[in-house]
Amino acid sequence: MDSLYQGILDAVDRLAGVSHRTPVLTSSSLNEATGNTVFLKCENFQRMGAFKFRGAYNAISRLSPEVAARGVITYSSGNHAQAVALSGKLLGVKTTVVMPADAPAVKLAATRKYGAEVVTYEREKMNREELAARLISEYGYELIPPFNHPDVIAGQGTAARELIEEVLSLDVLLVPCGGGGLLSGCAIYSRRALPGCRIIGVEPETADDATRSFKTGILQTIHNPQTVADGLRTESLGSITFPAIQKNVDDMITVSDNDILETMYYLWTRMKIVVEPSGATALAAVFKRSLPVQGKRIGVILSGGNVDVRQASELFANVRDL
Amino acid sequence: MDSLYQGILDAVDRLAGVSHRTPVLTSSSLNEATGNTVFLKCENFQRMGAFKFRGAYNAISRLSPEVAARGVITYSSGNHAQAVALSGKLLGVKTTVVMPADAPAVKLAATRKYGAEVVTYEREKMNREELAARLISEYGYELIPPFNHPDVIAGQGTAARELIEEVLSLDVLLVPCGGGGLLSGCAIYSRRALPGCRIIGVEPETADDATRSFKTGILQTIHNPQTVADGLRTESLGSITFPAIQKNVDDMITVSDNDILETMYYLWTRMKIVVEPSGATALAAVFKRSLPVQGKRIGVILSGGNVDVRQASELFANVRDL
Repeated sequence: MDSLYQGILDAVDRLAGVSHRTPVLTSSSLNEATGNTVFLKCENFQRMGAFKFRGAYNAISRLSPEVAARGVITYSSGNHAQAVALSGKLLGVKTTVVMPADAPAVKLAATRKYGAEVVTYEREKMNREELAARLISEYGYELIPPFNHPDVIAGQGTAARELIEEVLSLDVLLVPCGGGGLLSGCAIYSRRALPGCRIIGVEPETADDATRSFKTGILQTIHNPQTVADGLRTESLGSITFPAIQKNVDDMITVSDNDILETMYYLWTRMKIVVEPSGATALAAVFKRSLPVQGKRIGVILSGGNVDVRQASELFANVRDL
Repeated sequence: MDSLYQGILDAVDRLAGVSHRTPVLTSSSLNEATGNTVFLKCENFQRMGAFKFRGAYNAISRLSPEVAARGVITYSSGNHAQAVALSGKLLGVKTTVVMPADAPAVKLAATRKYGAEVVTYEREKMNREELAARLISEYGYELIPPFNHPDVIAGQGTAARELIEEVLSLDVLLVPCGGGGLLSGCAIYSRRALPGCRIIGVEPETADDATRSFKTGILQTIHNPQTVADGLRTESLGSITFPAIQKNVDDMITVSDNDILETMYYLWTRMKIVVEPSGATALAAVFKRSLPVQGKRIGVILSGGNVDVRQASELFANVRDL
């Protein structure tokens, strides 16, 4: 993993002055509620609203001029799409994003707003990988995958780097896990920078493929997992992220959708920050006490804040006031 | 106003280590959208979620031991009630809050949670001033009014002090105005600390009593004003705040409820911070361009973040995506 670690250090330089150095928030009431000292790395304040900008920008900025001139492509209906679109705009690289035709209008619009060409497909008639492959063979686009790519992982790892640089020591680091790009990057960095820190990945219990993969040592897949944490609905870890997690992560745990929503509600109403369900997942482990620790210094990545705020009444319908 | 100015300096010491030194946020997209450099003083991150804590704590901490031992009382269904309750708890002073029986359950519960005794009344049968007066004569409570009190005004002024200490220079300072406690305190401080800075109060256009008072020189009253900015529904300025505003404020302007809601939506969705309607009112003046300025350094007080997030879908129903 030495080259991945070096990749993170290189990404720090590449992102300097481009990505936001997001704030680390603390709260005495949160510390009281959890019995620990919690440091929240607020990637909801990152450009385009999520950590994904780090990896996408890092990956696109490393392309050779010839490859960059042909443009890049990705398939995503989430934060990675916007991250690629914004990074391409900043770097002067044409971006194409393959999205389902029935994706929320607000997401289609946001991706176009950042300058990407959006190519839509009918979910019933086509799959996104095939459509992307056809466009790649026709136009020579470079694929920027959402997590299973060394430069994407390296970019995501810079979030842990900034957090540790600011708080200096941590007993535990909690990172949400979907495809494992953020978790891999943060774990590779933390393992080297803070060898005594326990690194724990957190997943929704209905999308627990990574937890099962970690515990069995065999890559597990889950089909179309249903969870409120839409950013963590990936079907499996990747060929790079799985071994990186096996080597650098100490444990994987799961939290319920209800725990995620209660944690998110606390963040909105008490801490006054807008965090999306995926973004509240890692904190849920300590806020709802799935993780039995006390008196520790705990770093938590709040991974993003892109959520339709008009859906708050539905999302929080069953959350009791805290 | 020299004694009020000195009162602010004294309040700084009294609040040190007790109130939060709230962050000042900036955003390149906000700067681009407004054509100015905007500094947001985030009092939504203050203890109990609004600047009101500053004034209430300052006022209660100045009471003599004899007066404090009898307890304090206030009438409010908003942030001032919670500010008095929390301040009393921290200072070991018994607090009583008079609230209408039909106030939102979440507000009654929050005020009780901070340790206040809540006395409710039926709006049709009684008015709050009479009930408070009766309790004061019976128990000897000290009244802590929401704005028209030198120590309350002094506490609120510390918000401007912190902002100016951090950003050093400002061309314009925008402050929301209800009863004028925050505006008075901030204006008194800024007038002395930054004589060249224009100080502008901002009101909802349907609750424009202070603007009309300022422009006519005669105290105007408005009965039961209807605006989404519930924290700014006061009926008039007070005997201290009106002259302080006449002397220290350069102009008063109004914004529509729709402008307030669009600004609030931008703060939630793009800046990922939860701000209540009153809290977004001052920013609305520059975000929606009621105030024709360009290329200026503009300080804005985001006064609070206490809003029922479950009502977001209703609040934002008519806001178009930005």
